[in-house]
Amino acid sequence: MRVTNVVVTPVAFRDPPLLNAVGVHQPYALRTVIEVNTEDGVTGLGETYGDGPVVAGLRAVAARMAGLDVFDLAGLRRLVRQATTVAAGTGRSELDGRSRAAEVLYSTFEVALLDAQGKALGRPVVDLLGGRVRDEVPYSAYLFYKWASHPDGPEDDWGPALDPDGIVAQAKRMVGEYGFTAIKVKAGVLPPEQECATIHALADAFPGVPLRIDPNTAWSVPTAVEVGRRLAGVLEYLEDPTPGIAGMAAVAAQVEMPLATNMCVVAREHLPPAIAQRAIGVLLSDHHFWGGLRHTQQLGELCDIFDIGLSMHSNSHLGISLAAMTHVAAATEHLTYACDTHYPWKTEDVVEPGPLRFEGGSVRVPSGAGLGVTLDRDALARLHEQWRRSGIRTRDDVTPMRTVQPEWTGALPRF
Amino acid sequence: MRVTNVVVTPVAFRDPPLLNAVGVHQPYALRTVIEVNTEDGVTGLGETYGDGPVVAGLRAVAARMAGLDVFDLAGLRRLVRQATTVAAGTGRSELDGRSRAAEVLYSTFEVALLDAQGKALGRPVVDLLGGRVRDEVPYSAYLFYKWASHPDGPEDDWGPALDPDGIVAQAKRMVGEYGFTAIKVKAGVLPPEQECATIHALADAFPGVPLRIDPNTAWSVPTAVEVGRRLAGVLEYLEDPTPGIAGMAAVAAQVEMPLATNMCVVAREHLPPAIAQRAIGVLLSDHHFWGGLRHTQQLGELCDIFDIGLSMHSNSHLGISLAAMTHVAAATEHLTYACDTHYPWKTEDVVEPGPLRFEGGSVRVPSGAGLGVTLDRDALARLHEQWRRSGIRTRDDVTPMRTVQPEWTGALPRF
Repeated sequence: MRVTNVVVTPVAFRDPPLLNAVGVHQPYALRTVIEVNTEDGVTGLGETYGDGPVVAGLRAVAARMAGLDVFDLAGLRRLVRQATTVAAGTGRSELDGRSRAAEVLYSTFEVALLDAQGKALGRPVVDLLGGRVRDEVPYSAYLFYKWASHPDGPEDDWGPALDPDGIVAQAKRMVGEYGFTAIKVKAGVLPPEQECATIHALADAFPGVPLRIDPNTAWSVPTAVEVGRRLAGVLEYLEDPTPGIAGMAAVAAQVEMPLATNMCVVAREHLPPAIAQRAIGVLLSDHHFWGGLRHTQQLGELCDIFDIGLSMHSNSHLGISLAAMTHVAAATEHLTYACDTHYPWKTEDVVEPGPLRFEGGSVRVPSGAGLGVTLDRDALARLHEQWRRSGIRTRDDVTPMRTVQPEWTGALPRF
Repeated sequence: MRVTNVVVTPVAFRDPPLLNAVGVHQPYALRTVIEVNTEDGVTGLGETYGDGPVVAGLRAVAARMAGLDVFDLAGLRRLVRQATTVAAGTGRSELDGRSRAAEVLYSTFEVALLDAQGKALGRPVVDLLGGRVRDEVPYSAYLFYKWASHPDGPEDDWGPALDPDGIVAQAKRMVGEYGFTAIKVKAGVLPPEQECATIHALADAFPGVPLRIDPNTAWSVPTAVEVGRRLAGVLEYLEDPTPGIAGMAAVAAQVEMPLATNMCVVAREHLPPAIAQRAIGVLLSDHHFWGGLRHTQQLGELCDIFDIGLSMHSNSHLGISLAAMTHVAAATEHLTYACDTHYPWKTEDVVEPGPLRFEGGSVRVPSGAGLGVTLDRDALARLHEQWRRSGIRTRDDVTPMRTVQPEWTGALPRF
């Protein structure tokens, strides 16, 4: 079953003014949707980042894909290698990094080819990954300090959250609506003692619920150690408190909870030094940059062998990615924590509603063939038009923050 | 597509009097053939070790398999866990070792389920593993010191090989018939200086052909270091010169060529210490005890990440195993050396001849669906009857050596 052509569609979807260590989310988040059409009339879907170099890279691969057998992932890898030299990024892009461009591009098409395989065989993707270890994948409530509105924009219906009470209120709504049984706070926004107060407030409001905090490397080693000691017995893990493998290792040696990362170990070449230095206790996997679903499973296996926990990282994403995350998590035995997802923050999607429902904080593996989600072509056209009109072509959390704080640089660590 | 029943058939096939560090091969080698029958009329084939505890373990799993979906490898893993407690080995068995029993049993059925999947889909197994990185898999000539005959048996047509000239003559025949482009010598049989002479004789007779020597941990650390220094510039790798990860690490630090192993790193729990101690430069993978084809691919990925070379280990085996080895090796990008195989030493098989041909030392991936090999039921019955009559129920290279050298113990290291 061979590929006939590939359609690459950048989209933009509304995103709330969520705060983080480098700034604030733009009014729109970018993604790219790919449709891999085959001679059998089956279409495989993929979703990834949407910045300009990514879209260019995807198009460079797409242009080479006609004639590829949908089972030939090794052939896809060869096509990506050819195309990656063409798509070498300039400026900030999700393709930046030595091996990252190839992994990002490969992953997007791997997911689409697995979707096509599954649709052709009448099998869910999880079956092509070895079958399900679990029927439902647990996700965490992903809380953000946030403004009530984007600069000059209308208020969103979540309202502001800039102190412990605001975050607890946000958590109550999100846990109430989705049933999440773990909670993560995006931090690095307020001085560390205030963020510790937020965690303590959550611990009081949600006794027994596992808590995580993620300042995106906003803290120095001494600050991270101090926070880690303050939150001992309260956090299930401390995510990316400080930059770099050496910095993480220095913190890890001085705090009791495991350190998690999706920042200092984001490619294969980071694993040996991180393991040798005992820098991390939990890896936040992400099929979008770890080379697809099969490689994410391999990463889980590697983490199991080296006694490293496994959870899952999330950027702002749509339903195709949530389906892919759910299939691979369902097939990965060594998944030791609830996965992260930005899903509750989005108000628009490119897939028809239905298969992706949160119940008790978990998503049941879609039962349909392939990824089990259906593209909503009207919605895709609408979000593509939104991409066109938005003019946003790269993720930039710094510039919108500067409209409010002109001296803002986003430089880290801040505290 | 669900499993209806599983047939487990132990077989014995004639094996020459090949010498190694612990003794001599018995007149028959044991294997087990499994047939996984499905409701669609498709049968998946698997092959593994044939000692008593393995056969009992396979039967314990087989008895639980009715109703299992052939894509549900995660479900197979659960069945194996249940059965493994039943099949805890007593006495020497290929199931010995902490995690080994589960990996051996799982692997056998995983291969059979992948064969069934491929047959049902009309796809070769390599496609279910991500497609082919290579169309042909290179194997090495696997040379043995050997007697002309088993004790009290007739001479085989290879004749004796007990010195450099004998091994060179054996190599010339084997390379001539199969076209191998790498040569391995099973060592630990003669004093090390004589085995070094054999390697030098091969280097003279086959200039430029990569050479390996494998004494199966017959040497002390000082002996191994001395041999390693003597053979510097001549060997592509030195395989299992001495026992244990610490011993290997001590040798590795003092010789220039990489050390390879299928003895000190044979399970997941051995990888972290071996990597931390830089004990090995090449892992000899083997799907039979590394948990099947998919896990062997994962192992290749892990070796790539940690800059460890990958080759493939072989016990005496039949055509189902050669097909499985060829499919997984074809799908594994990080295969850095020609694979080992005992295949040229066997004179009997359970599969119909045809798809598994050596040309230029390589086996082309069989083009048929699944593994691409067809069970020869007459041959299977004949080799099962041979198993019954042979009375051999465990591999034991020590006892037959004692018939010639009554004081023989097989204790290692010997030199």
